[in-house]
Amino acid sequence: MTESVLDYMTRLGRAARAAARVIARASTGQKNRALLATATALDAAREQLVAANELDLAAGRANNLEPALLERLTLTPARIDSMIVGLRQVAALPDPVGAIRDMSYRPSGIQVGKMRVPLGVVGIIYESRPNVTIDAASLCLKSGNATILRGGSEAIHSNRAIATCIAQGLEAAQLPASVVQVVETTDRAAVGALITMPEYVDIIVPRGGKGLIERVSRDARVPVIKHLDGICHVYVSANAELDKAQRIAFNAKTYRYGICGAMETLLVDASVAARFLPPMAAQFREKGVELRGCPRTRDLIEALPATEDDWHTEYLAPILSIRVVDSLDEAIEHINHYGSHHTDAIVTEHQGQARRFMAEVDSASVMLNAPTCFADGFEYGLGAEIGISTDKIHARGPVGLEGLTCEKYVVVGDGQLRGQESI
Amino acid sequence: MTESVLDYMTRLGRAARAAARVIARASTGQKNRALLATATALDAAREQLVAANELDLAAGRANNLEPALLERLTLTPARIDSMIVGLRQVAALPDPVGAIRDMSYRPSGIQVGKMRVPLGVVGIIYESRPNVTIDAASLCLKSGNATILRGGSEAIHSNRAIATCIAQGLEAAQLPASVVQVVETTDRAAVGALITMPEYVDIIVPRGGKGLIERVSRDARVPVIKHLDGICHVYVSANAELDKAQRIAFNAKTYRYGICGAMETLLVDASVAARFLPPMAAQFREKGVELRGCPRTRDLIEALPATEDDWHTEYLAPILSIRVVDSLDEAIEHINHYGSHHTDAIVTEHQGQARRFMAEVDSASVMLNAPTCFADGFEYGLGAEIGISTDKIHARGPVGLEGLTCEKYVVVGDGQLRGQESI
Repeated sequence: MTESVLDYMTRLGRAARAAARVIARASTGQKNRALLATATALDAAREQLVAANELDLAAGRANNLEPALLERLTLTPARIDSMIVGLRQVAALPDPVGAIRDMSYRPSGIQVGKMRVPLGVVGIIYESRPNVTIDAASLCLKSGNATILRGGSEAIHSNRAIATCIAQGLEAAQLPASVVQVVETTDRAAVGALITMPEYVDIIVPRGGKGLIERVSRDARVPVIKHLDGICHVYVSANAELDKAQRIAFNAKTYRYGICGAMETLLVDASVAARFLPPMAAQFREKGVELRGCPRTRDLIEALPATEDDWHTEYLAPILSIRVVDSLDEAIEHINHYGSHHTDAIVTEHQGQARRFMAEVDSASVMLNAPTCFADGFEYGLGAEIGISTDKIHARGPVGLEGLTCEKYVVVGDGQLRGQESI
Repeated sequence: MTESVLDYMTRLGRAARAAARVIARASTGQKNRALLATATALDAAREQLVAANELDLAAGRANNLEPALLERLTLTPARIDSMIVGLRQVAALPDPVGAIRDMSYRPSGIQVGKMRVPLGVVGIIYESRPNVTIDAASLCLKSGNATILRGGSEAIHSNRAIATCIAQGLEAAQLPASVVQVVETTDRAAVGALITMPEYVDIIVPRGGKGLIERVSRDARVPVIKHLDGICHVYVSANAELDKAQRIAFNAKTYRYGICGAMETLLVDASVAARFLPPMAAQFREKGVELRGCPRTRDLIEALPATEDDWHTEYLAPILSIRVVDSLDEAIEHINHYGSHHTDAIVTEHQGQARRFMAEVDSASVMLNAPTCFADGFEYGLGAEIGISTDKIHARGPVGLEGLTCEKYVVVGDGQLRGQESI
């Protein structure tokens, strides 16, 4: 008699809940030992990792997977190196667990403050990149959480081989194997079970394409840290230094086209458009970026006509929409209406305009005189990121170790009683 | 042709979303003026408030509402006073919006920090107490959010009269009336609509009985700040000073039986049970508290036998379950298993035991040598509370103004570019 997927996932959930209590109280040293021992195990298992990955690649080729997907699936020596480096970096990060802040005396005589603690059990759902197994597991472990990892079925052999190394790392630190569990079945029902077990799973982090994230968010009964679109804007204001603005806009678009912080729409104040746009357009054109503009833009430079759809689109490609606006208000209005509340920047030397833009643009990151492509956990000093949240609840923007924790109140007294002046 | 409930709620949602942008950027002074002018309007409208309330009470009596419900529904002069005082207190609280923290330079030269901003639109769902209309509206307004308030149908006339005063307050501060909207229909479908409009509502706060909260949480497609059970424990450890422990346990149970922070289960270490329990039991018995104990408890004091159900029960009544445990580990295990992750306390003078209890008990509030009945926004210094969260995501424990906000990243540069050492 075989176990049903639901029974299997329930078993994983129970084990994770029990392991969560152990890892929550593990010392920083013990967690770091597990991370470093995992790095050592990966280094020693290079041959097995490549062999397991070869099984996935062979199956992928047989199933006619797209070349881009096969590329993401491949565990090259450089990618194994980078997993090892990543583990060591996470080991070197400060441990957020247990930090106490704002401890202060209240009139009653009790002291009240907040202590940072793990969330409990984190479910990670991802697609074909096997390195996510290490990235996600290491951040969850360092932040004191148990993890259930559900990778793409096309990477199952690679993920199992990586899981073996993680198990060795946990064992070396005398931590239970169920602190990090990899879902062994490729049955899609496993995802459905994972996202509907609030009794065993505290938060879900889906990593992958928009389709995956929308599906998970729609069906989840557990909170989801999610990242949808990155429709990012740069607004070149009336008071921008135009050469600085041009450098920032060029970097925001061309640093890498495929990242979520890439600029997709450039807003230019009408008062500077005639001076700013022609040299800017020439630079983009030389780089091979296709320009789509509003009618006023097209009066100034050569560009395809932008449609209403363009303002809503995350190209992730060498395409840029450009709109001339009459004021700061119109720029803020455009961003809050068409944007995805991800990352938006103003270029200005005018303090009052900067202050209003930073306060009124409702995005996870607002930037002044900096390109939107800086939106990244490493650039922000988080050390690493589990994802970027476009939600407002719990975590917003790049999510690092802190986003995998919460705070509880700590109250310390010495026999003070409520409703009584003195003891 | 009448408007459907869904159309009506969509109209409210759209208006709230637009108003949210206005209130988010309102100055502290403007928000305080609205709060103080509402207080003035309430004071001037005492007669109208009582008359409107009388309509609700008459309808309630005709519908044979329970006396307790009628009592909660009644707007006495003292309750109107306390709404006025509450508004003035919220006006006096510091404004959390716009606070920037942890602004620091990164190696790239950009500065990164976090700014506190409103969530947007808060939906409040509550039952018969009309004063919640003012409590909730004032906290949402001060934290820069628009609010949609859906009170119990039995309080509709009272809530409308209060809403008129709020509208006067908003007008006096030149803020749009739709910053605070009271749902005018008593159709229950309005609740269903409110909790499934993520495009217009950012968070839902249900205030009322467990049935309401469970229903809302189950059906919501918007995040919910929720409070379920308060099964709170006091553990008297082997190293407790027993007279202090007795005072704390007595206060935790008897300060008020009906609050969520009231102790429901007393755990006593086996090594002190024989000395601690007899005088403790005598004090409780004198106060009229019914005792239910485990077999070892009943060997020491007179008590009814506690069943497995007792450990799971929030009595909110003069009933207490008592269990003798063999160790700190057993106490923590009991609390994490049977408790509701609300508020739990240890009484001990032993530093190592205190440290472990505070770290390992997985509750919104953990207390050392203080009674659980201190779990309260005012006692914690929040100034006021919109509720107490037993969730881990976003807000945990008493939720004040800060829980109605989130943080976005602010990045300030001066032309720094990504992927380039210098400009």
